[in-house]
Amino acid sequence: MKILDGKKSAESVFDEVEREISILKEKNLRTPGLAVVIVGEDPASKIYVRTKDRKAKKVGIYSEVIRYDKDISEDELRKKIVSLNNDPKIDGILIQLPLPEKFNSWDILDLVDPKKDVDGFHPKNLGMLMLGRRKIFPCTPFGVLRILDDYEIDVTGMNCVVIGRSFIVGKPMASMLTNRNATVTLCHSRTKNIADIISLADLVVAGVGKPGFVKSDMVKKGAVLIDVGINYLDKEEDVAEYCTEDQKVRFKKKGYGITGDIHPDAFKKSGYYTPVPGGVGPMTVAMLMYNTLHLYKINSGLI
Amino acid sequence: MKILDGKKSAESVFDEVEREISILKEKNLRTPGLAVVIVGEDPASKIYVRTKDRKAKKVGIYSEVIRYDKDISEDELRKKIVSLNNDPKIDGILIQLPLPEKFNSWDILDLVDPKKDVDGFHPKNLGMLMLGRRKIFPCTPFGVLRILDDYEIDVTGMNCVVIGRSFIVGKPMASMLTNRNATVTLCHSRTKNIADIISLADLVVAGVGKPGFVKSDMVKKGAVLIDVGINYLDKEEDVAEYCTEDQKVRFKKKGYGITGDIHPDAFKKSGYYTPVPGGVGPMTVAMLMYNTLHLYKINSGLI
Repeated sequence: MKILDGKKSAESVFDEVEREISILKEKNLRTPGLAVVIVGEDPASKIYVRTKDRKAKKVGIYSEVIRYDKDISEDELRKKIVSLNNDPKIDGILIQLPLPEKFNSWDILDLVDPKKDVDGFHPKNLGMLMLGRRKIFPCTPFGVLRILDDYEIDVTGMNCVVIGRSFIVGKPMASMLTNRNATVTLCHSRTKNIADIISLADLVVAGVGKPGFVKSDMVKKGAVLIDVGINYLDKEEDVAEYCTEDQKVRFKKKGYGITGDIHPDAFKKSGYYTPVPGGVGPMTVAMLMYNTLHLYKINSGLI
Repeated sequence: MKILDGKKSAESVFDEVEREISILKEKNLRTPGLAVVIVGEDPASKIYVRTKDRKAKKVGIYSEVIRYDKDISEDELRKKIVSLNNDPKIDGILIQLPLPEKFNSWDILDLVDPKKDVDGFHPKNLGMLMLGRRKIFPCTPFGVLRILDDYEIDVTGMNCVVIGRSFIVGKPMASMLTNRNATVTLCHSRTKNIADIISLADLVVAGVGKPGFVKSDMVKKGAVLIDVGINYLDKEEDVAEYCTEDQKVRFKKKGYGITGDIHPDAFKKSGYYTPVPGGVGPMTVAMLMYNTLHLYKINSGLI
């Protein structure tokens, strides 16, 4: 088993983006701009948004965070998105999910100009992705491909099993792997005999939010295991069951442990695996920076 | 084994569309309009276009066929599509594929207003389909779902194997089956161990254009076999190998036989199967009529 070090891969993306932006600055060109819109007080969202803003600034991206109280009217939110669509400083607009329940998230996400859709969630961009006509890829599955590339893992002809059919991870991940010539099975909560299906996989991507969902006896020896789950555990017995030794130490120090959807024992049978944390997580933010720069280049006619 | 009679299912769709249009006529409302654009002299395309036009007129759809010589300039073709986008008589625009090689088909297809994209090939509509936010479905996979519905075959939890990853059949079919709670594996030319994968399938959709590709010993007893392939055979030995008794008779009369991608012996092991011809084929035209009416209803604010 070999660790796929997402922190290291993410650093290489940050470096790449920072270097490209420094060249733009040397040439006195405008730098790429990212706007993140957050509505309400979801604690995890607030942390994510802060991380995104900090990282963006660090690599030289012009970054704005627009924070709204959950009581904002839909009209005001819509107007803001339209004004960002027309703002020449902004190349990427990210609507932090989840939005408060009173909003129809689709209606709001659809307002983002596909040319500034830095998350790649607009139907037009997802359709382009399905067609293999790349424009912009959702950050998390894009991060998975980048890690695989960094470790020279070619998925051509591999049997890949993607668990979870969200539009954020599972569905675009399945399409992207198909377009890279993998044979992909997309599993979800209604899948029967999931253990049998996983047992045939050369590569597993798990994103269901259930600790220990993929068990050691399900996986084929030597498989590549990609863990997109992030689960916070605060009970000692859960930590004992689902966490690695590192995480057990964290639990003792901080009172909580973090684990993914794949049981640590399964990693021992794997060829490669992404740890949680330090695997796919850091890649998501890195690819957001990559996408912001990428949209900047498209919209400036540089590519 | 039980035949899934596509001719009968198609007739029920034609009847449904015709009945709805007759009500529009009674109310002195405009009838739905379809424009089919064909460029060049591809013989199969010419037959398809004639069938579509004839069927449209039969069910009461206003139908225009715009025929261009292969030498038409891209500019002229683009202008025509833009004028059809703005034509209030037209609800659905179909660009018959393949276009002559000098055209970039994507560029041309992208010009069709997603609101008039009767084939459902516009990236925005494919993205909506991936997201399960139905607007319009490509006709062939939509026809497959309709046959399954007519025979009350519920795919929830089924292992479905889709062979072929075209944007016309395989990719949208896989998404549509996923959204109906099936577990879907999308196979293609780079898939290894395809026999093993097919052997686990409760339902197989084959669309690769290779006679006898799915063999009897690959399929599970009782599986649902959906054959989207249409292959014309003119050699006696091929007809002997790949055709049903009916097709052997056709060969003797007409000098050619028609067969799909699934070997006739496999049908004998199936629970249900679609014959070729008379299975999925007639459904494609039927769903085109359905989609034209559906777009009319959306664009007229009736649904």
